Amino acid sequence: MPELRKDPIIGRWVIIATERAKRPDQFSGTEQNAPPEKPCPFCEGNESHTPPEIYALRPRHTAPNTPGWELRVVPSIAPFLRIEGELGRRGKGLYDLMNGIGAHEIIIETNKHIGNMADLEEEQIVKVIDSYIDRMVDLEKDERFKYVMVFKNYGWIAGAGRVKHCRSQLIATPVNPKRVKEELAGAKTYYDYHERCVFCDLIRQELDSKERLILDIDGFIAVTPFAARFPFEVWILPKRHSCNFTSLDTPGKLGLATTMKKVLSKLKKGLGDPPYNYVIHTAPFRRPKSGYWKSIDYDYHWHIEIMPRLTRVAGFEWGTGFYICPLPPEDAAKFLREAEV
Amino acid sequence: MPELRKDPIIGRWVIIATERAKRPDQFSGTEQNAPPEKPCPFCEGNESHTPPEIYALRPRHTAPNTPGWELRVVPSIAPFLRIEGELGRRGKGLYDLMNGIGAHEIIIETNKHIGNMADLEEEQIVKVIDSYIDRMVDLEKDERFKYVMVFKNYGWIAGAGRVKHCRSQLIATPVNPKRVKEELAGAKTYYDYHERCVFCDLIRQELDSKERLILDIDGFIAVTPFAARFPFEVWILPKRHSCNFTSLDTPGKLGLATTMKKVLSKLKKGLGDPPYNYVIHTAPFRRPKSGYWKSIDYDYHWHIEIMPRLTRVAGFEWGTGFYICPLPPEDAAKFLREAEV
Repeated sequence: MPELRKDPIIGRWVIIATERAKRPDQFSGTEQNAPPEKPCPFCEGNESHTPPEIYALRPRHTAPNTPGWELRVVPSIAPFLRIEGELGRRGKGLYDLMNGIGAHEIIIETNKHIGNMADLEEEQIVKVIDSYIDRMVDLEKDERFKYVMVFKNYGWIAGAGRVKHCRSQLIATPVNPKRVKEELAGAKTYYDYHERCVFCDLIRQELDSKERLILDIDGFIAVTPFAARFPFEVWILPKRHSCNFTSLDTPGKLGLATTMKKVLSKLKKGLGDPPYNYVIHTAPFRRPKSGYWKSIDYDYHWHIEIMPRLTRVAGFEWGTGFYICPLPPEDAAKFLREAEV
Repeated sequence: MPELRKDPIIGRWVIIATERAKRPDQFSGTEQNAPPEKPCPFCEGNESHTPPEIYALRPRHTAPNTPGWELRVVPSIAPFLRIEGELGRRGKGLYDLMNGIGAHEIIIETNKHIGNMADLEEEQIVKVIDSYIDRMVDLEKDERFKYVMVFKNYGWIAGAGRVKHCRSQLIATPVNPKRVKEELAGAKTYYDYHERCVFCDLIRQELDSKERLILDIDGFIAVTPFAARFPFEVWILPKRHSCNFTSLDTPGKLGLATTMKKVLSKLKKGLGDPPYNYVIHTAPFRRPKSGYWKSIDYDYHWHIEIMPRLTRVAGFEWGTGFYICPLPPEDAAKFLREAEV
C-alpha cells in the first residue's frame, strides 16, 4: 500500500510509492547525454578568465588573481542580480516589484580540476565551509540583504553548465525565499505548541528508530527525510541546536566536513556518480526591522538538504506542490548506510 | 537591471533576468535525447492493453473496451494511489501519515495516435473538457477525497514516458496539495483587504496594460504571469469569475477549447514543439467538515497554468522556492502574440 506522508516542518504531503517502486540499485546517474565540457576558467593559472576575486585562501606572498591559492570566491560572470543600486521597492497596479539587487558569487572549491566534492580532501571541505561562513558574515553587513542562499549544482542535469570544476554558488537577496519563510513559520508553530524544536525532535526520533539513519558521527546525523520528495534525498543536521550555519565552531566544521564527504561519497559510489544539488538552510539575517521573531533562536535549526537528480520531475509537481517519490526513504537509507566508501 | 517580482497570489518572489536573457527565439524544444517510442496501448483497437474503462464517449451500440470510442478514461496501469481501503490517518512519533488512498486515472483524449493536444480538433478538446468535468463531479461523491488534480505531461522531459499518444492524468487525493492551499490563503487575504478577487483584478490589469496579454477571446484570456517562474509560462483564465472548473457552461467549454488550441499551437509552432505540462487549478471539494471558508466562492478563481519545459531547473529552486526566469514575460508574451498559427 502506498503511503501519504506529511513533512512535519512545512506540512507538505507527498506520495511514497511502494508498489511501483524500483529497487534502490535500479537508480543511477543520468549524465549520458550531457554536452562536452568547455575549457575550465576555474583551474589554477586561469585566474584571468574569472572576474577579480572577492575572497581567497592563499599564502600572503601571492598577489590576488595569480596562482598559488587554495580556494577563491569570485563574482558570477553572468550574475542574476546586481550588487550596485537601491532596492527601489514599488508597486505596479496589483503587482509588487523591486530592482534586482543582490550578490551572486562563485566559490571555487579547489585549484585542481576535480568535479565532485566527494573527491576533495576533508581539510579542503573545511576550507569550503570556512569560506561559506566568511562570505555570509560579510554580506550580512549589507543592510539591503535579508538572506544568503548557498547551494551547489553538480552535473549538467543539476544545472552546473559545461564546466565540471568543483564549485558552489551563493546568492544574497533583499527578500526571504518562500521555502525559508515556510520553514520558519512551520518550526515556530511546532515550538509554540510543544516548546521544543521540531528539528531536535526529528533528530531524536531518527536516532531512536534508525529506519532512515545513514550516519551518526561527529555531532551530525545524515538521514533520508520521512516525507522525501526525491529518491535518495538526504538531510544533514547538526545534533547541537543552532539556527545559524555561521555559528559552527571548529570541531563542528570538521564534523560537517567528515559527514559531507561520507554522504557524497556514498551517493557517488552507490549510484554511479549522479548529478545532485544541495542547499544550506539557515536563519535569515535578523535586523531590528526585519520582523523575525525572537524565538527563531529556539525554534529554527540549520541543516543541509541534498537532492540527487535521478528522476525527471513532472511539471505537475511544481504546479501543485505535490510530489511522488518512487522509493521509500527507508530503502534509500538502508542502501546508503550499506554503501561502502 | 534585473527585477525581483512578487507573485500577487502566493507571494513568491522570482528573479526576472534581463541582462543575461536569451532572445525569445533562442528557446526551443529539447526532446532530441528522448528514448524511442514504445508500442501504443492507447490507440483504437488496443483496448485490451489498458485496464477496463471507467468512462467513455462512444456510440451506444458499441460495447465497453471495444473499438468505436472517441475518448476513454481508464485507471492508471501503475497507479500512485489505491482506490480501495480506508484512509487510516495516524501518527508515528512526530510524523503524520495515512494510507495512499486515491484515484489515478488516464484520460485518453483521442482514438488516433496524435501526440500534442495542439493537433486535436476544437470539438475534440471540448470532449476532453467534458470528461474532466464528468470525472471530477463523479469523484466528488467519494467522501474520502478532498481534491482532484487534472494535469498533462507532454513529451519525455515533461514526464510523459515513452508513449506519445495524447492524454491527461487525474489524481484524486484525500489531502489538499500545498500549492492549492497557498493559493486559497493568498486569495482570501487579498479579498479580505480589498473585497475583490485577486484574479479578477489581475485580468482587468492585464487587459488594460496588454504587456503580457497573448489572447483575449471567447471569454478567456491567456497571459504570461508577471512573476513567471519559467520562460513562456502561460496562464489561461476565464473572465467570468468562478472558483470551480466544473461550473463551465457549454459556451465556456467552447471558449476554453478555442483558447487552449490557440495557445498550445503557438507554443508548438513558435518554439519547435517543446515538452510542456499543464495543471488545472480549481477549488477543493467543499464538504460540511472540510473547513474551507465560505468566501471561496468570492475569492478564488479557477485557471490553467501551462509550463513549457525549455530550461533545466536547478535543484536550488526546489530547495528554496526561489526561481530565476531567464526571459521577461513581456518578451515571451509578445513572441507568442505574434506567433502565427
